Amino acid sequence: MNNPIKIGLFGYGVVGHGVYDILINSKSLRTEIIKICAKHPEKKRDLPMENFTFNKYDLLDNPEVDLIVELIDDAEAAFEILKEALLRGKNVVTSNKKMLAEHLQEIYELQKSTGKSVLYEGSSCGSIPIIRTLEEYYDNEMLNSVSGIFNASTNYILTRVCNENKDYDLTVQRAQDLGLLESNPTLDIVGFDALYKLAIISAHAYGYFPKTDEIVTHGIQNINKYDVQYAKEKEVVIKHVAHARKVNDNEICLFVLPQFVSNERDLSYVNLDDNAVEIEASFSQNHFFKGKGAGSFPTGSSVVSDISALTYNYKYAYKKRELHSKISQTQDVVLEVYFRYYDKRNLAYFQFEKITEEYKSEDNNYVVGHISLKALLAAKDRLNTADIFMAFTGKIID
Amino acid sequence: MNNPIKIGLFGYGVVGHGVYDILINSKSLRTEIIKICAKHPEKKRDLPMENFTFNKYDLLDNPEVDLIVELIDDAEAAFEILKEALLRGKNVVTSNKKMLAEHLQEIYELQKSTGKSVLYEGSSCGSIPIIRTLEEYYDNEMLNSVSGIFNASTNYILTRVCNENKDYDLTVQRAQDLGLLESNPTLDIVGFDALYKLAIISAHAYGYFPKTDEIVTHGIQNINKYDVQYAKEKEVVIKHVAHARKVNDNEICLFVLPQFVSNERDLSYVNLDDNAVEIEASFSQNHFFKGKGAGSFPTGSSVVSDISALTYNYKYAYKKRELHSKISQTQDVVLEVYFRYYDKRNLAYFQFEKITEEYKSEDNNYVVGHISLKALLAAKDRLNTADIFMAFTGKIID
Repeated sequence: MNNPIKIGLFGYGVVGHGVYDILINSKSLRTEIIKICAKHPEKKRDLPMENFTFNKYDLLDNPEVDLIVELIDDAEAAFEILKEALLRGKNVVTSNKKMLAEHLQEIYELQKSTGKSVLYEGSSCGSIPIIRTLEEYYDNEMLNSVSGIFNASTNYILTRVCNENKDYDLTVQRAQDLGLLESNPTLDIVGFDALYKLAIISAHAYGYFPKTDEIVTHGIQNINKYDVQYAKEKEVVIKHVAHARKVNDNEICLFVLPQFVSNERDLSYVNLDDNAVEIEASFSQNHFFKGKGAGSFPTGSSVVSDISALTYNYKYAYKKRELHSKISQTQDVVLEVYFRYYDKRNLAYFQFEKITEEYKSEDNNYVVGHISLKALLAAKDRLNTADIFMAFTGKIID
Repeated sequence: MNNPIKIGLFGYGVVGHGVYDILINSKSLRTEIIKICAKHPEKKRDLPMENFTFNKYDLLDNPEVDLIVELIDDAEAAFEILKEALLRGKNVVTSNKKMLAEHLQEIYELQKSTGKSVLYEGSSCGSIPIIRTLEEYYDNEMLNSVSGIFNASTNYILTRVCNENKDYDLTVQRAQDLGLLESNPTLDIVGFDALYKLAIISAHAYGYFPKTDEIVTHGIQNINKYDVQYAKEKEVVIKHVAHARKVNDNEICLFVLPQFVSNERDLSYVNLDDNAVEIEASFSQNHFFKGKGAGSFPTGSSVVSDISALTYNYKYAYKKRELHSKISQTQDVVLEVYFRYYDKRNLAYFQFEKITEEYKSEDNNYVVGHISLKALLAAKDRLNTADIFMAFTGKIID
């Protein structure tokens, strides 16, 4: 039998705890956790103090450590740890989606230059093995699209609010109590968490490393009873869906929006804290994957599968990156959207190409119309801050 | 760039054609098909005659050939080709589920002794990458269960007959016209195709290589309007579901039966020629995968993903086999089933432990009751030949 993998673990929060428990209980994967590097020496913990260090170099400079498992919150600190680990000849497993999304190019190059491996299945869609599947199974197809429900917290809230008519604010509170939302829920609710995952998935589905601020993103923070009622009348549910889509042989588009989903679609049955990914491919056709999108053990098990993959020196090949280096992102794509507003200046600010439906009343106004990603990107700040709610109808205008 | 993989292709039927087309059109996977070994020299084909050979040793003894891709119908001939290829130092990609299911142990040992690789993602559940996912992603968890709809033809028929009230015989005819059923549809309809896939999945999910004649299997060949009506009254749909389930730390059970599925279950939305797999795990929790279960390109793309995996010398690790060598199969599991019969001698023949519901009339009789896998296995021949229809209610009796 092989020697155990010697791990330096950074972070002992929800996922770190899960990973620790799974590793300790594994009968098959032989690992040894040298120490856990944590931030707050004063915090009470369920393990003896001798298991911890508060100096990252105790792990980074320890020649015994083969692998750094990085599960901390702070994206910039995480990137520093990752970089220092690779440069010291250690592999890295991480689930830090913000860090990954913002440093894809550097992480790709660091792996090339050091010959070391960075694996991050736990960063995207909880327990669904999506990165590995894109890397290995779809490595020879130009995919038509990869889309899905990538954030468990918003899906939990939308399920309660849209399917069960629960109050939005109470539901957010409940999600926080359940540990489904971060202490600062903004990243989830305004769609940034899904955006980061989309950027990572884009790298493996299309070999394209997007800039996160060039991806149209709108969250669910402003959803209200009129939106829920509108969806009911149209016999659809509202889901928060991230899209990476092939536009032509050289261009893809990326966006993250609330979306109306009819009950004929698989996505309409993805409820509460589940995540799902839909892949449309020419040869292998449509695939649908569903699994738990959050939580200590589901995410932890993704992290552990990466640790396990390192026992046979697994590396992402980024084959699409090598092959499709000419792929670029286009914003010249027109979507049909539902746009609910109160202040008419908000409507005027968005450059709709066409309005096909319009409703006005004393306390609720909406339009259905055509708008390009380019126009949405130009109105990005207002998209995140104004009192509006927008949902993609699912229709792309040719 | 690497040299192209040099392939000896056996079989140019539906899947062989698909694989050929995908390989020829691939921009990323560099392959060269040395020749195609076919059976009938007199058959008209869409490629020049010089692409074909009718003597298997033209490929097996050709030192230029790196890889044998075996896509013929005949399981025994396929096994001979596989064995001869491995012994001559060539890797093998195959989708022949019958051959695999019946020779799991030998194929496992041949890979060990020759150091060569046999990959067979295309054998199970069409385009769903289930073998690879079990091998790599669930390699450190004792799974609670792996179950699903593994046969596209029966699912097509059940969808038309149960959900759309179509006539059974006409639907079978239609499925044949669509190319969804083999020329001899028996393997699909009596459940053997799903049984073979279950055996293969058991090897990778539990490291257990079952004997196919020790797995309780019942097909859909006798389904009639009373069964469809009964399901409607109970507000369930009838699906054909294969099960591998952990019973305790050392035992699993395996069975393939029609099953009543309520519309709260993901499986109830798997229609027509789709396949689906559900995985229940302690840590990563529940996963659901859906994709096309049949057809030239979906299965072909699975085969091509295996060819691609050989570019980095991928081999199945059969890690569960190494770890859980003490796993055995038990038949001491009691299921609740619906059992519809005409001749009461058929009911008497099956050793029910308990009857909980009974209905008799002039032209239709059924019971709902508890019966063990052991009793079903003892009545195996009658299960396949008598005019009865049995469906698992989904309830396992403790």
